[in-house]
Amino acid sequence: MSSEFERIARIRAALDRETPGTLTANGDDAAVFDIERPTAVSVDSCIEHTHFESAWLSLQDVGWRSQVAALSDLTAMGATARYVLVALAAPKEFSDSSLDALCSGIGEALDKAGAALIGGNLSASGSLSITTTAIGELCGKSVVRSGAHPGERLYVTGTLGAAGAGLSALLAGELDAKPIAAWRRPPLRTELAPQISACASACIDISDGLGQDLEHLARASNVGFVVHAEKLPLAECVSANAAGYLQAWESGEEYELLFTASKEPNFEARHIGFACKEPGVRLLLGDEPLTTSATRGFDHFR
Amino acid sequence: MSSEFERIARIRAALDRETPGTLTANGDDAAVFDIERPTAVSVDSCIEHTHFESAWLSLQDVGWRSQVAALSDLTAMGATARYVLVALAAPKEFSDSSLDALCSGIGEALDKAGAALIGGNLSASGSLSITTTAIGELCGKSVVRSGAHPGERLYVTGTLGAAGAGLSALLAGELDAKPIAAWRRPPLRTELAPQISACASACIDISDGLGQDLEHLARASNVGFVVHAEKLPLAECVSANAAGYLQAWESGEEYELLFTASKEPNFEARHIGFACKEPGVRLLLGDEPLTTSATRGFDHFR
Repeated sequence: MSSEFERIARIRAALDRETPGTLTANGDDAAVFDIERPTAVSVDSCIEHTHFESAWLSLQDVGWRSQVAALSDLTAMGATARYVLVALAAPKEFSDSSLDALCSGIGEALDKAGAALIGGNLSASGSLSITTTAIGELCGKSVVRSGAHPGERLYVTGTLGAAGAGLSALLAGELDAKPIAAWRRPPLRTELAPQISACASACIDISDGLGQDLEHLARASNVGFVVHAEKLPLAECVSANAAGYLQAWESGEEYELLFTASKEPNFEARHIGFACKEPGVRLLLGDEPLTTSATRGFDHFR
Repeated sequence: MSSEFERIARIRAALDRETPGTLTANGDDAAVFDIERPTAVSVDSCIEHTHFESAWLSLQDVGWRSQVAALSDLTAMGATARYVLVALAAPKEFSDSSLDALCSGIGEALDKAGAALIGGNLSASGSLSITTTAIGELCGKSVVRSGAHPGERLYVTGTLGAAGAGLSALLAGELDAKPIAAWRRPPLRTELAPQISACASACIDISDGLGQDLEHLARASNVGFVVHAEKLPLAECVSANAAGYLQAWESGEEYELLFTASKEPNFEARHIGFACKEPGVRLLLGDEPLTTSATRGFDHFR
């Protein structure tokens, strides 16, 4: 087995990139960077047996997913991803080739985002766990959850429902179901940070599910939301009926951007509803509520 | 059981502090801060069954230790601690009172360091794990591991050997041995950051053990080190003989600061040796080597 320091050298070799703006990166007690604008920072964990089972996806996919989950928080804030620190905990028997596969998925996401690894931590642990600290640079104003106003339109990027359908298939042991691909490789929307910063009044990335994340926006902004089911951008595998709309509402882990704006965005996003004064979130099919407020998004402790 | 969001509210209530310099802290997709000087960032994990067993210490102690390990990296860099983000993974059955106890230890350390929680992540997991991202502000120049020069003196803060003796006692099942207190509550040296920045040419915090951490400095600086065993600041429980000196050499988890300087530091630190041109690290007892180079510091994968 490789030693801790041999493994660290392996990770650094796999993820060695230019780190513009840093004074010190990788290999010292701390990384040091100096960027002009306000700095956004977020942390996200991806834990075996909690967020995934190793039979469900390749280690490349685990690496990709871990970074998307962390980086999408910066995008939702209107910040361009610059750096990550990765705290990796892995079983002692985690092989060098496993480590290489994991790093390759991490590297793919970092390359697409234009971000670089500047530090991390390596520990032995009973199961695989990747905790990523993502650091970015505000593009302009920061886009907080509390910025939505009644009357503003509600938008979402991409399509909804496939990630949840994929996860359900995995939980049911159907490892070959088509929507699993969407769960394994969520989109990385980091290139939208400048546009989100310019046009969105409030934004959140969809990790817990459209309904639940909308509740976060509603509470923080002290508004309500009405969403029209027929306007939802359904993934190919999701049916355009009540069950399908609810699937899109409760799916989660899409890592798409959900935002309010008072003007039309200059990038691809679907107008799905609007913010209103009345509290609560309502999913309407025609004029009838399909669901109101309480949603069944993901809760780690329920 | 409390839900994920009730638990997050509980953590925020326990650790609510002023967060000067932030534009957004806690509760949004990312925290946003704006500090003038270069920013130092480091990440450190504290994992049940890897770094500790829950029978060994209270949850307050776990909280304290987790923060000391993360914050001492900033001090070693010559950076003042400002913010932390805590990624907490805990079993579903982790109770509210356990969470409160853990937060109380985290809060104690943050208060002493003058740092504030600005973000985090909460996941369910099989075992307890705390991954802390520590963010600080450089006091002046950054103090890197590669800055040592032949002829400079080598210094260490505090005393050595007790943490290792405490850990050995715990591993042997002697839960009442006296040095365990030192292992449970390592010192927080964050107030020394300005002085380290002003006087040290190279610095590292002792996490792996004096001998091994000295090797990190030696390799990064391309120098060797000679340490005089009789000069080591031994903890009370460590005997002043060959076995005791080796205990201090190999202990680890002291989180004391080990640094080189060409002038006398203006704070309490023991002069234990010097940097030299010849590669390798040597612990001398009189003129005889007690040990050279290869040490038995901690390795997560050995």
